[in-house]
Amino acid sequence: GCAKIDTHREWRVGYPEVIFCSGKTVEQVKAIVKAMLEREANILATRASEDLFEEIRKICPAAVYSSLARAFTIKRKALEVSSGYIALVTAGTSDLPVAEEAAVTAELFGNRVERIVDVGVAGIHRLFYNLEAIRGARVVIVVAGMEGALPSVVGGLVDKPVIAVPTSVGYGASFNGLSALLAMLNSCASGVCVVNIDNGYGAGYLAGMINRL
Amino acid sequence: GCAKIDTHREWRVGYPEVIFCSGKTVEQVKAIVKAMLEREANILATRASEDLFEEIRKICPAAVYSSLARAFTIKRKALEVSSGYIALVTAGTSDLPVAEEAAVTAELFGNRVERIVDVGVAGIHRLFYNLEAIRGARVVIVVAGMEGALPSVVGGLVDKPVIAVPTSVGYGASFNGLSALLAMLNSCASGVCVVNIDNGYGAGYLAGMINRL
Amino acid sequence: GCAKIDTHREWRVGYPEVIFCSGKTVEQVKAIVKAMLEREANILATRASEDLFEEIRKICPAAVYSSLARAFTIKRKALEVSSGYIALVTAGTSDLPVAEEAAVTAELFGNRVERIVDVGVAGIHRLFYNLEAIRGARVVIVVAGMEGALPSVVGGLVDKPVIAVPTSVGYGASFNGLSALLAMLNSCASGVCVVNIDNGYGAGYLAGMINRL
Amino acid sequence: GCAKIDTHREWRVGYPEVIFCSGKTVEQVKAIVKAMLEREANILATRASEDLFEEIRKICPAAVYSSLARAFTIKRKALEVSSGYIALVTAGTSDLPVAEEAAVTAELFGNRVERIVDVGVAGIHRLFYNLEAIRGARVVIVVAGMEGALPSVVGGLVDKPVIAVPTSVGYGASFNGLSALLAMLNSCASGVCVVNIDNGYGAGYLAGMINRL
Amino acid sequence: GCAKIDTHREWRVGYPEVIFCSGKTVEQVKAIVKAMLEREANILATRASEDLFEEIRKICPAAVYSSLARAFTIKRKALEVSSGYIALVTAGTSDLPVAEEAAVTAELFGNRVERIVDVGVAGIHRLFYNLEAIRGARVVIVVAGMEGALPSVVGGLVDKPVIAVPTSVGYGASFNGLSALLAMLNSCASGVCVVNIDNGYGAGYLAGMINRL
Amino acid sequence: GCAKIDTHREWRVGYPEVIFCSGKTVEQVKAIVKAMLEREANILATRASEDLFEEIRKICPAAVYSSLARAFTIKRKALEVSSGYIALVTAGTSDLPVAEEAAVTAELFGNRVERIVDVGVAGIHRLFYNLEAIRGARVVIVVAGMEGALPSVVGGLVDKPVIAVPTSVGYGASFNGLSALLAMLNSCASGVCVVNIDNGYGAGYLAGMINRL
Amino acid sequence: GCAKIDTHREWRVGYPEVIFCSGKTVEQVKAIVKAMLEREANILATRASEDLFEEIRKICPAAVYSSLARAFTIKRKALEVSSGYIALVTAGTSDLPVAEEAAVTAELFGNRVERIVDVGVAGIHRLFYNLEAIRGARVVIVVAGMEGALPSVVGGLVDKPVIAVPTSVGYGASFNGLSALLAMLNSCASGVCVVNIDNGYGAGYLAGMINRL
Amino acid sequence: GCAKIDTHREWRVGYPEVIFCSGKTVEQVKAIVKAMLEREANILATRASEDLFEEIRKICPAAVYSSLARAFTIKRKALEVSSGYIALVTAGTSDLPVAEEAAVTAELFGNRVERIVDVGVAGIHRLFYNLEAIRGARVVIVVAGMEGALPSVVGGLVDKPVIAVPTSVGYGASFNGLSALLAMLNSCASGVCVVNIDNGYGAGYLAGMINRL
Ligand SMILES: Nc1ncnc2c1ncn2[C@@H]1O[C@H](COP(=O)(O)O)[C@@H](O)[C@H]1O
Ligand SMILES: Nc1ncnc2c1ncn2[C@@H]1O[C@H](COP(=O)(O)O)[C@@H](O)[C@H]1O
Ligand SMILES: Nc1ncnc2c1ncn2[C@@H]1O[C@H](COP(=O)(O)O)[C@@H](O)[C@H]1O
Ligand SMILES: Nc1ncnc2c1ncn2[C@@H]1O[C@H](COP(=O)(O)O)[C@@H](O)[C@H]1O
Ligand SMILES: [Mg+2]
Ligand SMILES: [Mg+2]
Ligand SMILES: [Mg+2]
Ligand SMILES: [Mg+2]
Ligand SMILES: [Mg+2]
Ligand SMILES: [Mg+2]
Ligand SMILES: [Mg+2]
Ligand SMILES: [Mg+2]
Repeated sequence: GCAKIDTHREWRVGYPEVIFCSGKTVEQVKAIVKAMLEREANILATRASEDLFEEIRKICPAAVYSSLARAFTIKRKALEVSSGYIALVTAGTSDLPVAEEAAVTAELFGNRVERIVDVGVAGIHRLFYNLEAIRGARVVIVVAGMEGALPSVVGGLVDKPVIAVPTSVGYGASFNGLSALLAMLNSCASGVCVVNIDNGYGAGYLAGMINRL
Repeated sequence: GCAKIDTHREWRVGYPEVIFCSGKTVEQVKAIVKAMLEREANILATRASEDLFEEIRKICPAAVYSSLARAFTIKRKALEVSSGYIALVTAGTSDLPVAEEAAVTAELFGNRVERIVDVGVAGIHRLFYNLEAIRGARVVIVVAGMEGALPSVVGGLVDKPVIAVPTSVGYGASFNGLSALLAMLNSCASGVCVVNIDNGYGAGYLAGMINRL
Repeated sequence: GCAKIDTHREWRVGYPEVIFCSGKTVEQVKAIVKAMLEREANILATRASEDLFEEIRKICPAAVYSSLARAFTIKRKALEVSSGYIALVTAGTSDLPVAEEAAVTAELFGNRVERIVDVGVAGIHRLFYNLEAIRGARVVIVVAGMEGALPSVVGGLVDKPVIAVPTSVGYGASFNGLSALLAMLNSCASGVCVVNIDNGYGAGYLAGMINRL
Repeated sequence: GCAKIDTHREWRVGYPEVIFCSGKTVEQVKAIVKAMLEREANILATRASEDLFEEIRKICPAAVYSSLARAFTIKRKALEVSSGYIALVTAGTSDLPVAEEAAVTAELFGNRVERIVDVGVAGIHRLFYNLEAIRGARVVIVVAGMEGALPSVVGGLVDKPVIAVPTSVGYGASFNGLSALLAMLNSCASGVCVVNIDNGYGAGYLAGMINRL
Repeated sequence: GCAKIDTHREWRVGYPEVIFCSGKTVEQVKAIVKAMLEREANILATRASEDLFEEIRKICPAAVYSSLARAFTIKRKALEVSSGYIALVTAGTSDLPVAEEAAVTAELFGNRVERIVDVGVAGIHRLFYNLEAIRGARVVIVVAGMEGALPSVVGGLVDKPVIAVPTSVGYGASFNGLSALLAMLNSCASGVCVVNIDNGYGAGYLAGMINRL
Repeated sequence: GCAKIDTHREWRVGYPEVIFCSGKTVEQVKAIVKAMLEREANILATRASEDLFEEIRKICPAAVYSSLARAFTIKRKALEVSSGYIALVTAGTSDLPVAEEAAVTAELFGNRVERIVDVGVAGIHRLFYNLEAIRGARVVIVVAGMEGALPSVVGGLVDKPVIAVPTSVGYGASFNGLSALLAMLNSCASGVCVVNIDNGYGAGYLAGMINRL
Repeated sequence: GCAKIDTHREWRVGYPEVIFCSGKTVEQVKAIVKAMLEREANILATRASEDLFEEIRKICPAAVYSSLARAFTIKRKALEVSSGYIALVTAGTSDLPVAEEAAVTAELFGNRVERIVDVGVAGIHRLFYNLEAIRGARVVIVVAGMEGALPSVVGGLVDKPVIAVPTSVGYGASFNGLSALLAMLNSCASGVCVVNIDNGYGAGYLAGMINRL
Repeated sequence: GCAKIDTHREWRVGYPEVIFCSGKTVEQVKAIVKAMLEREANILATRASEDLFEEIRKICPAAVYSSLARAFTIKRKALEVSSGYIALVTAGTSDLPVAEEAAVTAELFGNRVERIVDVGVAGIHRLFYNLEAIRGARVVIVVAGMEGALPSVVGGLVDKPVIAVPTSVGYGASFNGLSALLAMLNSCASGVCVVNIDNGYGAGYLAGMINRL
């Protein structure tokens, strides 16, 4: 086989392995799904095209697809949903796919997620209308492209960890997300950390880990 | 001589030439000052060390030095001060030298400048306390380093041109002002333009031009 | 809804929100247009494909498309046209789409625009033939790719604010507009500021703001 | 005054403001310390030289300096120390100053910190000898320069959040920490987030926030 | 003819020239293959599409295609297979094409290759299960994308030369393999060297050279 | 000895080797000068400090130092000076050292050099006053920092080869000459080529080669 | 019209304007060709697709297309061919399109061109077999991608100007020609200058200028 | 203690740990040396200043310093010197320190080293005079800065592994060794691998490993 599924992972780090579909053939993804189904794990597959999903549904009709998040999930075990919740804040409409990848990930691992969308810094009053919902969370994910300024503003307003996700939204000197990434790494607010450009999955996973501490 | 002073400039673009001292010897600056004194122009010299200034004072006791701005000025002609004013907003304490270079420039060219300091996005309420002063201006300069987020927030709150000045304040992935520069170029607020990193002079000059339209 | 339309913006910054179509689905753009039509706003949508426009025309036959600017507009309120005008200067033929995005934007917000095209520095005499038209403006937009030298030359010849727009025109070491961007940021002419690569919209908006001061 | 101390911060985000000394004059730091002393806050100042500290000690003999961390602290209020702890893992000897900045920060905010030093990936067995101590923590900080590989290895072995701190340790193609930064952002382990190059302070602060959830 | 085949090479450096198909037309590749067939050389062609191979098979039915490696080979001379072997270690499933290019190259030049796949650092125990096979080799190739950490770990565990191959696997701040490349160049393990991003061929060739010393 | 002097060079490429002093010890430079003196060659040494020169003068009193160019020369053979000349054009005062390195080089190799200084694009009329002198040359060197626009303007006005020399003059986004370098490489004027940042020597050498064709 | 044809150029710089087709519509190119035909100029159009050429042939059957160079020419005036010649040296087969663009340009302007192909540094003896042809030229163009080493070797072997053309041939860390560009700019051979990546046209034009001096 | 000495390393990878002095205090280096002396290991310390060495000599008079290599060694065990040898080729005089670091390293580990200095590509005949010595080696190290072309030329002339070491020698667009690094990674010769910029130690270590296979 081409892939060594990390069967120890759930025991070792508390969560099953997740399938990153980008760069894998349909056959490879199918083989991994089949092997995981045998072990009764909940399954999450990210960066999955609609076409790929159609093939998976043939072998597992219970699979559910989120076209916005480009991800599918297969729930095999009941999840105890957390009482505390994750606030998921997005700057603009184009950041939604990345945010939704984070949401799908966090929810599959049993977390409650509150979405606060389209509150970017160019119209900062929209953020203030939603401040209570953000402050009530145990951890906050902030998704933004272009100048990536939103995590700094949020970080200055809450006393909870902020996970900043730069997106490749923008053009020209955004250099495919570099501008947002650098801005977030240089945030002058405390309590802010950063994941890779467009890495909604990573943010959702980490937020879930923190939320369930 | 080493330098061709652009004696036409005041007639051509409305302002006398300005001396950029960085990379010039004391003798070169002295020669330029002397030549300009003969033409009765108001003189501005930027990036001037205290030592350089001491030499200039010997040939022109009327020269005045701003150690914060690292600039000296020689006023020869009375200036009619503008009725409208420029709002000069800075994110942090370390951005003050660049901001002050802008202030000295704008003031020498006859503009009134209102300073609003240390209102960076990590404590955004400080900005709101000063909003009226910013909104009353004809044009706004915003000086910030690190994540360079402040111009976007200001740009979303005022209906006046915003000149964003990235500074080299920061460390690590700020890459000497690159992070702030990229953030400002990608501002999702409208009405924002950008000058070079640490270019307080350029911002003050342009703001003055706009203020006096 | 996916998008929080910033209904305060016209009151807050003096202009209605503008729709940036890139990265939005047809359905999303339609929904935003419909919501804005209800509020009787003038509408500008940039980075819009011809196909997208055809869909919009179905719900609003009054919409007008500029294929050069890749933008559509819907005029609902009479505009008072400015007496002063914006000079819009382009270096080469390939810079026209970006320039036209600036023109459409400025004109929708009530500004008169004078176009001076194809006067790049490699044939500098072409610029001098048009100097009077440039000097007569209240503010100048200069659009150029490749070495991005034109704003410096223009900035040295006029006493008005110059907004430099780097374009991604070029190849090889132009790095998609980086060469022009850096050149413009380092302009040794005073009174020059810069917007993002290919950001005709931003330049048109800012020029309009300045022109109407 | 040059600085607007963010006196609301403790109430707003749960911690007092921290003084970032780099780029501030002795007089500026002294003024901020005096103002904070009046409000009976615990004080942390980072990037402080020994010389600066000597000046501070004159106005506050209770100040304590860590020369490894280049930070001083002034404890005014008793701290309740956390029961859970933060594991602080460093790859090499040269990463110690950054790690110690994290430790000083976390400890001042009432966290217990376990240090596991010099366990970089080139001698991976050293990490395994210390695995129990790492696994027992509520949150892990991993500090590494050069290839920045350690957070990925740690992230694959624990089920707790990992905060990765790239350092500028290295030469040549490390480009002052860029290699470690990029490696950490691209970590194929889940549950890893990143702060700015050499930002021990930010990591210590965030880890404390998470540890006390 | 468009290409000067380096007919001296086998005599000069011990191996025949290899055809790099990327950027060559079908006609150019055909012409080179024909010329080499006349000299009875073993032939290796890399970066060859399936379509190109179909054309080659028409003129040489003995050609064999590896779709994973995107390479074809034509064996004309019996090869004496080495007794020592090359260990070929890959971090993830998506690195397989690059690894296989290395394998095809090394095998055509008479080397025995042991493949150890999918043992990336996020599940480091998988590496330890295979340590004996790696330690038994005369030289080790390690192929990895994203954070490129695997060569450092392997380099710290074996006393043989390690050839690190960064791949363009990843997204966002992997910048098409730059993150892995920089990490490998900065490896703190001794005995590690690096080839170009995705250059499986180069690694296989060099490993073969070393294996047969 | 540490250095193999390329004694064939004069025969092979028409000029003696030149000593690049940067990174060489006084002893190394002395040894090279002594060896060259024995062969009766004219000697040029670039990037030479005043201190180094004082040491050289002790062993060769005929040596002449140009402090502006940071170069010394030793003339041993009479030079036939060219009838055609090189125009050497500089944008600003700070570009003079690089320009002078070019002049010293070209003159030592027997070329007549016409200097036209401080005619940068921000005051383009200064260039036109000197156009005749530029047009009369057989080849033109243009030295500029910051936005590096001058070679494009000159290239559009003359029918002779233009050698563009970017300098590290500037700050911020000039990135030590990168902005000027990229601008010059992207020149939309024909007949322009580029040498390394601050490489006055290279430009002077090449111009001399062309002038003497 | 969209384009101001620079009708003065032939008089001013000695050559007619050249049409750069990339980014222009068929209609724009047609209009420019028609206007130039009226002035009886020889016409060169670069970066022209076969489809575009088919359209041009309809309005001017005398047009000739080079598919390798992606250029078409229209000869209206007899050319006096130079007695001296340009040596055009290429490193590899994939560099041929760029080289041919240079050849077509130089030939249209009346230069004799000697092609020496596929003599890259990895088989340096191939260069030596052709040294006489290279040494006989008045000026040399060297075209190379990947490590861009060939111009340095050639520059050390001839006493004529060398124009280095980096190409985007390569992959991975060639970064689309950046590696070759930087190598050529840093050439330790004297008498080497550089044009933009893939800029065969620029090299051919400049070489022609020098050849006809 | 601050450092965990990797006492297993000699057993695990066949060589004792090496002390990288850069960024370590005198006390730290002394402590490590003392601990290693107790274990009777041969000791190598790189990046050591003369001052540091003087301190070490006090505790171990047998220590030997190479000021060119900035390294010291302490030989405690007799070394069996290899019969095969390493060819160490340098392009220019300024590359000698990096080359010597490689030599000291390889020699301490029992390898014979043949030095061939100052044979850079700008005078390629110097390389050919030394070809026999290079071809006789079992492995070749090539050290070069600026355009980094020498490894490609050597790689095309020998049938042995080539380890390329880019140096930070150069200025301007050499970007502290980046140009040489990229050139070497893109070498079109087969059998070439690369280590970090200025990493003589790494090259010497790896060459020794290969030489003793
Ligand atoms: N701090 C500054 N930053 C950027 N440009 C400046 C600054 N100060 C002066 N200048 C500009 O530099 C020009 C003088 O350059 P130079 O001819 O080198 O003395 C002036 O005309 C100003 O336009
Ligand atoms: N070492 C550090 N690295 C990054 N940020 C810091 C550091 N130390 C303090 N800070 C932050 O910088 C802020 C103070 O910035 P300033 O207003 O310039 O004094 C503090 O509120 C902290 O959030
Ligand atoms: N200022 C300079 N910039 C670039 N190259 C130079 C310079 N001065 C001398 N050179 C070149 O450097 C070579 C000497 O290099 P080296 O062998 O290290 O002494 C000479 O032959 C010149 O080709
Ligand atoms: N000059 C050098 N360049 C790169 N790595 C080195 C150098 N000298 C020693 N090393 C490596 O650095 C390791 C020691 O790092 P440290 O634990 O920080 O002392 C040694 O085991 C060597 O592998
Ligand atoms: Mg919005
Ligand atoms: Mg502050
Ligand atoms: Mg044109
Ligand atoms: Mg260690
Ligand atoms: Mg896997
Ligand atoms: Mg000047
Ligand atoms: Mg070939
Ligand atoms: Mg030399």
